[in-house]
Amino acid sequence: MKTPNRVRIIEVGLRDGLQNEKTVLDVETRIAFAKRLAQAGVKEIELGAFVSPQWVPQMAGSQELVSKVVALKREKVDGKHSEFKTVRLSALVPNTKGLEGAKQSGVERIAIFASASEAFSKKNINCTIKESLVRYREVVEQALAAKMSVRGYLSMCFGCPFEGKVSEAKVVKLAEKLLDMGCDEISIGDTIGVADPVQVKRLGKALKSALGKDAMAMHFHDTRGTALANILASLEIGITSFDSSLGGLGGCPYAPAATGNVATEDVVYMLHRMGVKTGLDLESLIETSRWLQPKMGRELPSKVARAGLPRIIS
Amino acid sequence: MKTPNRVRIIEVGLRDGLQNEKTVLDVETRIAFAKRLAQAGVKEIELGAFVSPQWVPQMAGSQELVSKVVALKREKVDGKHSEFKTVRLSALVPNTKGLEGAKQSGVERIAIFASASEAFSKKNINCTIKESLVRYREVVEQALAAKMSVRGYLSMCFGCPFEGKVSEAKVVKLAEKLLDMGCDEISIGDTIGVADPVQVKRLGKALKSALGKDAMAMHFHDTRGTALANILASLEIGITSFDSSLGGLGGCPYAPAATGNVATEDVVYMLHRMGVKTGLDLESLIETSRWLQPKMGRELPSKVARAGLPRIIS
Repeated sequence: MKTPNRVRIIEVGLRDGLQNEKTVLDVETRIAFAKRLAQAGVKEIELGAFVSPQWVPQMAGSQELVSKVVALKREKVDGKHSEFKTVRLSALVPNTKGLEGAKQSGVERIAIFASASEAFSKKNINCTIKESLVRYREVVEQALAAKMSVRGYLSMCFGCPFEGKVSEAKVVKLAEKLLDMGCDEISIGDTIGVADPVQVKRLGKALKSALGKDAMAMHFHDTRGTALANILASLEIGITSFDSSLGGLGGCPYAPAATGNVATEDVVYMLHRMGVKTGLDLESLIETSRWLQPKMGRELPSKVARAGLPRIIS
Repeated sequence: MKTPNRVRIIEVGLRDGLQNEKTVLDVETRIAFAKRLAQAGVKEIELGAFVSPQWVPQMAGSQELVSKVVALKREKVDGKHSEFKTVRLSALVPNTKGLEGAKQSGVERIAIFASASEAFSKKNINCTIKESLVRYREVVEQALAAKMSVRGYLSMCFGCPFEGKVSEAKVVKLAEKLLDMGCDEISIGDTIGVADPVQVKRLGKALKSALGKDAMAMHFHDTRGTALANILASLEIGITSFDSSLGGLGGCPYAPAATGNVATEDVVYMLHRMGVKTGLDLESLIETSRWLQPKMGRELPSKVARAGLPRIIS
């Protein structure tokens, strides 16, 4: 089987994960979480979101959190760099107001969040896709002018809870628009965990032709257990960047009992067993997952954290 | 992607699933469970095990259960056949004593349980692999003489909690031996859920060359979340038979908190979404999983039963 030698893991637990959890973690705990991720070798961390805490209480304090972590990244203590020195930090920004906060924090990268489903765009961000792109164009332009880089999320790429099927041509076109706008990478979201490997290969190939593999990441939710199979399907067509969330933090607002984001440690377990490098330390990830679980007040969905590593292997 | 048009699902929840659960279900509940499976279109059901209830209390009453279901299969009520008419029924048989029970029940197919790991064979069935094969040869001969067919399980094919790595050459050789002995199918077990897709393709191809695809089934546990990815890998090399357990019934005695067998409804969800036929009715399976869950006194691991079907799709 042809698989890449190495893949990039983009950790989204602190943002996409936590914002969908009932339990709200304070800033200090989130910083401790970020430190543990960096110590485990994670090189890309989305730290929070510059959104109103009225709407998303889980992201309250993102200004403080991002500013502090950025400061840690820049600082030397006793002549030594912190664990964040080589980590690319980012934060979600919904609008120009949020961008002001991001600029103040000094974060080097922002993310914007568009949808491939018209119905979801209206429900989630209260505007049409077209209107959202107009808004984001301004955000991206200002961010680039401030020397920040921009990641674009595209949600509901494999199906929508309101619209049902989502046109693959539309997904490709929107991804291209986000890239043209100045994003350097598009995260292709299976936001409600409905994708299957055949669909992933079909849409993934179309996106790879349009964007190039280095300008895309796959963002799978494990709502119906297919996330690792979908990652395998992506690897088989040469995609090498994946979003994941430590412990499987996150949920699915459209299926309250269900699992959300795929767990970082489950992804890394499968990849390492397959001989694919990630640069991450799996035991540290599992330890962090177990450290985090009591703070979240629920059993986190990661299967590897629950089962532990086998006493083997290769 | 080349995938088969249709696959066989062998339901092992009533045996491999239940025997690893803490909760013991009575015979009537297990018969009701089997009926629901048959009504959902399941064509192969392992009903129980002819083992001592002292050792495996969960399998107590297998004699009565299997006899009753066999009778239902043969009977007509008001001129109508039961839901079991076209279902192949089987039961696990550890030795010639168990075989006597199986004969009395009238079941058409038995299964024997060998291991690819010497250490596990000793711990699990208290004899070496060689000794187990001598014992099973006698069981298989007598079963064939009684016009029963025989399935062979081979456990720990991808790794063992005691030995670590298991030689792939040894797995192939043992599978061939079981076939030569008179088994018509070997179920290749990832008993502790450690397999990865690369390993599955490598060992799967070797087994397919040695046995032929119609004489093998893959038996994955989802202990570390990789079962559906491993099924995808198997499909991609042309394997078309899979064991699964409704709801994900079962566990892993070597990782008590962990998930066991892959859930039938999760497998069927992925396959149907991929366009692969199973002949099973997914909604009925989910309904049965939800019917079963309160009886088991724990949340069953199936993700599809928890999330439900998406409001979509193809």
